[in-house]
Amino acid sequence: MLGNFVYSNPTRLYFGDNAQQHLADALRPFGRKVLLTYGSGSIKRNGVYADVTAALAAAGKEVVELPGVMPNPTVDKLCEGAEAARRHNVDFILAVGGGSTIDYAKAVSVAAWHKGDAWEDFWIAQRDPQPGARILPVGAVLTMAGTGSEMNGGAVITHSGRRLKIGKVFGENVMPRFAVLNPRYTFSLPCRQMVSGIFDTMSHIMEQYFSGSDDNTSDYLAEGLMRSVIAASRVAIQDPKDYEARSNIMWTATWALNTLIGKGKSQDWNVHMIGQAIGAHTDAPHGLTLSGISTAYYRHVLPHATDKFARFARVVWDIPAEGKTAGQLAEEGIDALAAWISEIGAATEIASLGVTPSMLDDIARSTLIMPGGYKRIDHEEVIAILRESL
Amino acid sequence: MLGNFVYSNPTRLYFGDNAQQHLADALRPFGRKVLLTYGSGSIKRNGVYADVTAALAAAGKEVVELPGVMPNPTVDKLCEGAEAARRHNVDFILAVGGGSTIDYAKAVSVAAWHKGDAWEDFWIAQRDPQPGARILPVGAVLTMAGTGSEMNGGAVITHSGRRLKIGKVFGENVMPRFAVLNPRYTFSLPCRQMVSGIFDTMSHIMEQYFSGSDDNTSDYLAEGLMRSVIAASRVAIQDPKDYEARSNIMWTATWALNTLIGKGKSQDWNVHMIGQAIGAHTDAPHGLTLSGISTAYYRHVLPHATDKFARFARVVWDIPAEGKTAGQLAEEGIDALAAWISEIGAATEIASLGVTPSMLDDIARSTLIMPGGYKRIDHEEVIAILRESL
Repeated sequence: MLGNFVYSNPTRLYFGDNAQQHLADALRPFGRKVLLTYGSGSIKRNGVYADVTAALAAAGKEVVELPGVMPNPTVDKLCEGAEAARRHNVDFILAVGGGSTIDYAKAVSVAAWHKGDAWEDFWIAQRDPQPGARILPVGAVLTMAGTGSEMNGGAVITHSGRRLKIGKVFGENVMPRFAVLNPRYTFSLPCRQMVSGIFDTMSHIMEQYFSGSDDNTSDYLAEGLMRSVIAASRVAIQDPKDYEARSNIMWTATWALNTLIGKGKSQDWNVHMIGQAIGAHTDAPHGLTLSGISTAYYRHVLPHATDKFARFARVVWDIPAEGKTAGQLAEEGIDALAAWISEIGAATEIASLGVTPSMLDDIARSTLIMPGGYKRIDHEEVIAILRESL
Repeated sequence: MLGNFVYSNPTRLYFGDNAQQHLADALRPFGRKVLLTYGSGSIKRNGVYADVTAALAAAGKEVVELPGVMPNPTVDKLCEGAEAARRHNVDFILAVGGGSTIDYAKAVSVAAWHKGDAWEDFWIAQRDPQPGARILPVGAVLTMAGTGSEMNGGAVITHSGRRLKIGKVFGENVMPRFAVLNPRYTFSLPCRQMVSGIFDTMSHIMEQYFSGSDDNTSDYLAEGLMRSVIAASRVAIQDPKDYEARSNIMWTATWALNTLIGKGKSQDWNVHMIGQAIGAHTDAPHGLTLSGISTAYYRHVLPHATDKFARFARVVWDIPAEGKTAGQLAEEGIDALAAWISEIGAATEIASLGVTPSMLDDIARSTLIMPGGYKRIDHEEVIAILRESL
């Protein structure tokens, strides 16, 4: 059942192939000095940087640049950003990039004026910012669909030395104030990155869907989003420049992880927990770490929620139910998921991401196992799932 | 395709069987004087009024009461409310009721300090409030699920003398600042009202779904919401006190009309346009005016969008497609809709709502026919649809 919750999402979304036209107006209310953060500089080659700096200039902003955000943003990089935000006393942080860059901007927004060790307090101890603490407002220009970071309070940070990659979900005061979502901004992304984002989206939906036994509106919305991203992925994989497909993927990714479809659902997020541990050990693309383990993980969980997996087969994959047991249908649903992972070219095994048998125990140790799903797993089960996924 | 749009919805929702516990805190930021508006006084019998006045007292508010909002709020009542809001110089309007009461509160919020005739300017001429115009903030405590008014900027007002019932969709500055959604608050509603709200919800979804030819994420979300409200309605009709079913109905109704599933869709809203004209002539429950004409309307439109109606049959009603033409499947989808209208006890014909053959021409004249759907209809077609629905 839906249960008790508060829903509030203040992020304003500008969507479409001219969405950047809103950027200057969106920036105006937020003070004069902007910390502009981005990744490896690909935005300078595809025209996005030019659009953004033009809007910053039109809005009369003074810009401090902070490039070099890596795919799995590190604690060291977080400290650098927080220090820069303080030193320049910026009023606003504008993130231009995918989920890593936006996650990073949110992390800097809480770390900049935090008294104490942000990594220890927010990520290790999972505390919230103190009421009244200064949090810098953040805006986002999205260049890769997948993480949903543009409309939520999440921020995943990696401690390379300790091989830990940990997500923290902040409240609405950390959510981006606005996000510019232009599907064309994702066209120049390498195919492997597009596919990583597509599977990340699918995983977000599945990890909220596969919990609970109730006939919850959230599950029906989740089924709609899964059907949408599957259909769009099949077009985009053939023609990455198909605007319609890329726009549906972008919009689905946003709604897959902006809290809506999680309402009334307990969630364990163990595919993300294991995937993040793989990421901390290999630096592999996030979505591919998830596709690499998903089928093994869900086959492991299946006996504890056969009916839900049967529904998944029937509603999401259109598999006829007639003459089949729930168990058979459930298995066919995971078969369909596995076939789709191959079809779109996502990782079907984690060996392809650089995982070796000798790493499995360490990866399992870095996995922050969570309760809340159909099956509470332990360290040995994580190793078994990883071995199955090799 | 999704196209270009801005999505922003500032309404904060408190959902659940203890949602009213948030009311005092939600009210606090909005000044001292509150205009409390509600309908016929049923809230005094079911305990909702006691909960609300306790929260108002806890928040230290001075309350001006404005009861007597009718099911189809009239222009005269709007003037009374606007005058009261001005005279008492209230800071905030709290609506306790269903869509009519919340629509009414929003109408008063723009009319109170509007220089000019609010009905002529906003509803007849469909203008927006001038930038900088004073608009009173509104909050809502929902007691009937259906209209979605709790999370949108819409307000339908009726001019009884002119037999006109017209909706105006305002921007986010008119959307409720918060809404309290407690499914138990809907338990004492008469079954006919519950069913009216259920069909209103279904109609909101269908009227956004049945447009365009693209493979749009909005359509997939719409299908999920339709499946959810159909499943929940079948439980609620047997046991109106089933909390899970009523909570899913309430949540679905909110998301059916808060702009999300309309993104990227042209929409004609002609079922609402005809239904509202019936309402202006009969004062019949809104949702029943829609159920009374929907099957005739959709059979009329079907030949212009056979594939979409076939998809509706397959995905929403789980009708097997094998061995059928798209046309057959499409017809079976509308048959399933008709059967469900009977099953839940919604109106299957408008004669039961007091419509007589001699009224059809007048009703059609009061219908504000809109473009944007699969078939642009004219006055004669409206009469034909009405006659078919008698």
